[in-house]
Amino acid sequence: MQAGKSSIQFEHPPIITSAASIVGQTEGEGPLASFFDRVEPDPTFGKKSWEEAESELQRQTVQKCLDKASRQAADVNCLFAGDLLGQIVATSFGVELFDIPFFGLYGACSTMGEAMILGAMAAGAGYADRVLALASSHFASAERQFRFPLAYGNQRPQSTTWTVTGCGCVMIEGNEKNEGKDGRRAKENASESLKNAGQEKLHPKFQPCIPAATPGKIVDMQMRDSMNMGAAMAVAAVDTILQNFRDFNRKPSDYDRIITGDLGMVGKEILLDFMREAGQDISSIHMDCGIEMFDPKTQDTHSGGSGCGCSAAVLCGYILPKIQAGEWKRVLFVPTGALLSQISFNEGQNVPGIAHGVVLEGKESFGE
Amino acid sequence: MQAGKSSIQFEHPPIITSAASIVGQTEGEGPLASFFDRVEPDPTFGKKSWEEAESELQRQTVQKCLDKASRQAADVNCLFAGDLLGQIVATSFGVELFDIPFFGLYGACSTMGEAMILGAMAAGAGYADRVLALASSHFASAERQFRFPLAYGNQRPQSTTWTVTGCGCVMIEGNEKNEGKDGRRAKENASESLKNAGQEKLHPKFQPCIPAATPGKIVDMQMRDSMNMGAAMAVAAVDTILQNFRDFNRKPSDYDRIITGDLGMVGKEILLDFMREAGQDISSIHMDCGIEMFDPKTQDTHSGGSGCGCSAAVLCGYILPKIQAGEWKRVLFVPTGALLSQISFNEGQNVPGIAHGVVLEGKESFGE
Repeated sequence: MQAGKSSIQFEHPPIITSAASIVGQTEGEGPLASFFDRVEPDPTFGKKSWEEAESELQRQTVQKCLDKASRQAADVNCLFAGDLLGQIVATSFGVELFDIPFFGLYGACSTMGEAMILGAMAAGAGYADRVLALASSHFASAERQFRFPLAYGNQRPQSTTWTVTGCGCVMIEGNEKNEGKDGRRAKENASESLKNAGQEKLHPKFQPCIPAATPGKIVDMQMRDSMNMGAAMAVAAVDTILQNFRDFNRKPSDYDRIITGDLGMVGKEILLDFMREAGQDISSIHMDCGIEMFDPKTQDTHSGGSGCGCSAAVLCGYILPKIQAGEWKRVLFVPTGALLSQISFNEGQNVPGIAHGVVLEGKESFGE
Repeated sequence: MQAGKSSIQFEHPPIITSAASIVGQTEGEGPLASFFDRVEPDPTFGKKSWEEAESELQRQTVQKCLDKASRQAADVNCLFAGDLLGQIVATSFGVELFDIPFFGLYGACSTMGEAMILGAMAAGAGYADRVLALASSHFASAERQFRFPLAYGNQRPQSTTWTVTGCGCVMIEGNEKNEGKDGRRAKENASESLKNAGQEKLHPKFQPCIPAATPGKIVDMQMRDSMNMGAAMAVAAVDTILQNFRDFNRKPSDYDRIITGDLGMVGKEILLDFMREAGQDISSIHMDCGIEMFDPKTQDTHSGGSGCGCSAAVLCGYILPKIQAGEWKRVLFVPTGALLSQISFNEGQNVPGIAHGVVLEGKESFGE
């Protein structure tokens, strides 16, 4: 990264060696159902509060991610994670049992992007051999936090999104070529991990890696409607995507997909309009995780899915496998967040947006 | 960092090239008053809500930190920051005007340590030329969030701490020796920044740097008393300090000071007891920012100061200057956080703790 540019380029791109996703029942009735590792029919996850349910969702997803890589928690150097709740309590209680050094994050629904960028930095420089990056949301804990008690049965405008009950977790490791950097990671460790957890199991053809990232700025368009967060976030996504194009001298056709987090139907239109105005038509390659998550014909979820678990689960269940299969060679993953709290909203504050861009590429697993 | 160890060692330690602190009136009547850059007598900072007041406090502190380094916001590649409020709204609105790529953090009162570790990683590996790390808290916004409305005038047990109105912000840059790492930082940039912002202005004798860090794990001792957070955090501090000793084969006498964030009187005793039990007596070199902040004889702040602005302001106003003057050669700075929310507390959840350890050393500015 250089002054005047926002993006980071990884000389030896960190690799994603495992990914897991678990979602709730409504998500399990949507178009992507078959791609997730597990659909949990019990919204309480066997716990006695929505917050504990979300913690349990995180715990199970982290465990699944470790299991898929044949790894133990002790093999992981640090964990980057967050959720939507005040003081990210779902995360604190969700990950504490793993006893891994922990960086708590809050990026609203952009948290998965934030976690992956920081995780890629730590692994890319050799400060960590192996990290986990995850984000979760839960419909019921988020509704209570940001909107209304479920029992109140309030009316929802069409621009409202539906908070996804879901969690996605990725394991990021340094590239084995990246020895001798500032950190102290031993080359042997990395090679061994590739053997144990690498291509045979998870990367049949192409190994997903993170060659670059564009961390987002806070973009405040003076929006004040918490029931239309897609609009607040769309402009932040525009800012990050254009910054990425400028920093790497790229155009839409350099990506197979540009995938936003949870703009929903309303936010998507705004994104595409603003991008067109900037001379960059991304309509043919744009996808939004929130729109993919639910079927608008059969599921009454209005503008689409949202919540930081939405983009995290879609990344792990749907996007990474497409890259592994070689279907997509280069993707710009742009989780989008709306920065508000119950208090800021009630005090009449704006709802600024933020979007973190993560470049994902598939590297041929063999012949390197 | 290697598997089995939690700590990070920076081969070319990132340097702290600027630091600023602003506090409120009560803090300005305490023993450290003269060390802060500014004492603001108006608790609202000229704004109409406590949350906006905290945002303004952050804004002014960031600006002060930039000014002291003769830098503009555009010279900074990214910003690591957080506060205690739900969805860290004080931070979102506090830093948005600077238009710097932003990583939102939540580590309760340990946030300054978390921000500095991540900032040191980004600068140390060359992913950024220059970052800012900051944390704030405000007595009134925190009381409302976690305890009772101020107007309620509730009784406070002696183990309660007093949330500090304060903010500390440091500027971290890569060491100029650290060219050619994974990031793309140009050597010229770093040299120039040292000339502009470096030793002449801020480091009369010794330049504070970050040679190592020990990110904390979540430690849950099944505490459930939100009015005794010092106890919840003390054991996390023990865990991080002992981990640091093990990872670097150190003992108490290897540090001039081991400085916790906001354990207060009650937490300090628990820390010293547990450390003694572990065979490491740190009583002669231990200092707690929360205890230093207020005078128990004249200020009715019970167990001491707390809040992530407490350790951040004491670091910037008091600790770093001691290192710059050569009075302390090596310090272990351990901000401590209690992981609870209003909801988790009301649902009867535990209050786990976390403590992030940052090693600070003074490098002779000349003769390198």
